[in-house]
Amino acid sequence: MLEQMGKEARKASYQLAQCSTKEKNQALTIIADLLEQHSPKILAANELDMQAARSSGISEAILDRLLLTPARLKSIADDVRQVCFLTDPVGEVIDGKTLNSGLKLQRHRVPLGVIGVIYEARPNVTIDVASLCLKTGNAVILRGGKETVNTNAAMIEVIQEALQQAGLPAYAVQSINNPDRKYINELLKLDKYVDMLIPRGGAALHKLCREHATIPVITGGIGVCHTFVDESADFDKAFDIIVNAKTQRPSTCNTTETLLVHTKIAEQFLPKLSQVMADNKVVLHADPASFDILKSGVANVFPLQAGELDDEWLSLDLNVVIVDSLELAVEHIREHGSQHSDAILTRCLKNAERFVQLVDSAAVYVNASTRFTDGGQFGLGAEVAVSTQKLHARGPMGLEALTTYKWIGVGDDLIRA
Amino acid sequence: MLEQMGKEARKASYQLAQCSTKEKNQALTIIADLLEQHSPKILAANELDMQAARSSGISEAILDRLLLTPARLKSIADDVRQVCFLTDPVGEVIDGKTLNSGLKLQRHRVPLGVIGVIYEARPNVTIDVASLCLKTGNAVILRGGKETVNTNAAMIEVIQEALQQAGLPAYAVQSINNPDRKYINELLKLDKYVDMLIPRGGAALHKLCREHATIPVITGGIGVCHTFVDESADFDKAFDIIVNAKTQRPSTCNTTETLLVHTKIAEQFLPKLSQVMADNKVVLHADPASFDILKSGVANVFPLQAGELDDEWLSLDLNVVIVDSLELAVEHIREHGSQHSDAILTRCLKNAERFVQLVDSAAVYVNASTRFTDGGQFGLGAEVAVSTQKLHARGPMGLEALTTYKWIGVGDDLIRA
Repeated sequence: MLEQMGKEARKASYQLAQCSTKEKNQALTIIADLLEQHSPKILAANELDMQAARSSGISEAILDRLLLTPARLKSIADDVRQVCFLTDPVGEVIDGKTLNSGLKLQRHRVPLGVIGVIYEARPNVTIDVASLCLKTGNAVILRGGKETVNTNAAMIEVIQEALQQAGLPAYAVQSINNPDRKYINELLKLDKYVDMLIPRGGAALHKLCREHATIPVITGGIGVCHTFVDESADFDKAFDIIVNAKTQRPSTCNTTETLLVHTKIAEQFLPKLSQVMADNKVVLHADPASFDILKSGVANVFPLQAGELDDEWLSLDLNVVIVDSLELAVEHIREHGSQHSDAILTRCLKNAERFVQLVDSAAVYVNASTRFTDGGQFGLGAEVAVSTQKLHARGPMGLEALTTYKWIGVGDDLIRA
Repeated sequence: MLEQMGKEARKASYQLAQCSTKEKNQALTIIADLLEQHSPKILAANELDMQAARSSGISEAILDRLLLTPARLKSIADDVRQVCFLTDPVGEVIDGKTLNSGLKLQRHRVPLGVIGVIYEARPNVTIDVASLCLKTGNAVILRGGKETVNTNAAMIEVIQEALQQAGLPAYAVQSINNPDRKYINELLKLDKYVDMLIPRGGAALHKLCREHATIPVITGGIGVCHTFVDESADFDKAFDIIVNAKTQRPSTCNTTETLLVHTKIAEQFLPKLSQVMADNKVVLHADPASFDILKSGVANVFPLQAGELDDEWLSLDLNVVIVDSLELAVEHIREHGSQHSDAILTRCLKNAERFVQLVDSAAVYVNASTRFTDGGQFGLGAEVAVSTQKLHARGPMGLEALTTYKWIGVGDDLIRA
């Protein structure tokens, strides 16, 4: 089954690569319109998924993620219309020159080809990823969470109908609707047809992909992010930033999970932190030195447990660790971080520069919240994923990350000397 | 053992990332000097490898590849000195702006970190790769062919001595000198410490890496390259280009392996081709239609066998296939090519543009030899590998392909709204 999907996707990708931006935008507009027109069908399919999810005793949070409403579907369709306004990176001439040999050489930006995306039970991601891939002229094979099988099937049907109306190959967007996990493993080995794999999910999914995929994988999305409060930090500003970095949306990967505090200010800083964190309902997990100071405060505080420094909380929990120097803060981040986003709060130019230089993460901040690591915030217009590996794309991946380049050499009947 | 190498390499990479271009060039200069100073030691080690190779009955071609002479070693040292003159990509500000939020965001080019390279029995590659990695601030773990174990060990010892003299960590350049293949498998799984893997070798090595590596792999170097002679091609110019593309250095990956000839000119073109190929000692492997025409010519010609279209000849052999149209030439390339380098020879602007647009290869040429696909020819100053996959880098990889970027966000105490 997957072999056939791969073949069809590859064939579709050749056609998509030849489409003009106008043609691709027309298809996106039709997709948006049909999503609204077929809203009853999609909502009915979603209701089937919701019933199955409710009876399997899934948490309220995940149920809410699964749920489509007329308003949510309208908003998803509007998001597709927004993609039309994004700049199409395909066709850009990246650089070029005439070489000594006389060869006129240019690099042109082209679609990657076929992209595989494995993700959780989020119906909006199905449409989001499909529209970004189409916009960049890529075919896509989707594999959403098993809880959204019916919703996804209905939405893909609508997309394929729209593609056909637009005169594009229906198989440009396909999804694996069979929840059997063996199809994930097959997808991971489909290197003959798939050029890039984007897993969107937890650490286990990324590990599975790294270990079994024969296709280049973009791993990321795991954020063990740090904020380091340097000895020169302005306390009040620091609290604003920490509250933002921890509480604005705790379930996201750019949330700060560990606060590193310079030992010289710990005695003054931590009692005040205790108050601020209590006001914001943040539970603290303190290393022995900070526990000594924090335990008499008003915040809910626990002694830090083994392993807590190496995982995402994704909740209103925050590790607190005292460090003796900027260098030790950096060492801590190197040891425990996931190379996602890390920040320093400081008034000292030299320390700011040193931190930025030494910390090897996708995004490094000075006096700003780690929450900024996001395609929208970075002005990329969209976000396909956040990469924490270093090849191809690092940090938030926008449309450009769905492209590659082709070298084009034109000669006047030229041979290599 | 490899775990320890990985740790040391990672540690060294942190230090290298802080080095100025001047410091890195000083180290390279010392490496070049010590390679010459320790030339007797290195040549003695090479003699051991040569003796073992001779007694194992290895071919003369490979023996010649293995052999170091005082002149070759001097030339290798001079190549290292040349790397000093290349522009250091590290530290470049790729782009930047102040976002609506007030965040000042820049992308800075930084080293990848630790690079693993697996390659054949070529002593020059050891020094070449080590110097390019050092120039870009990367640590490297090398695994050369088992036939060069003694030579590599001696050269790595010299490099490490030079690094120490330069005040850089000796473990910035390490090599796996144990020929046991299990260490390759261990290296493939060292994702905790190695950021990128470059296999340089045959198809089997690339397959092994794709299937077993948990580290991002750059595959490439396999070149099933095509030259398509369009109906409007100038015959004499075409022969010049084909001879260059096939015979200039047949063992390289950018050599043309299959000639596609438009059916409309086949009757006139092929008999003349037969003469030119005979003059250049090229053996032809012809599909049925072209065999009919070629068999009465002067060239050595065989009927094309199954599988010959999908493999590199790496010799003075050339497949000849007649195609009915440009579109069918493209289809042939899609089916049999390795997305390396493909050329069209034509006088027709529209066909030239169409070919360039439709062929999805790292390098696509119009009226030029496929032999141009090369870091030096492309003006990259160096070549680490030729990538035929689409992520990170495509085609010849220069110094820039050994780097990634880091997003640096500076705020005036900034929180996300």
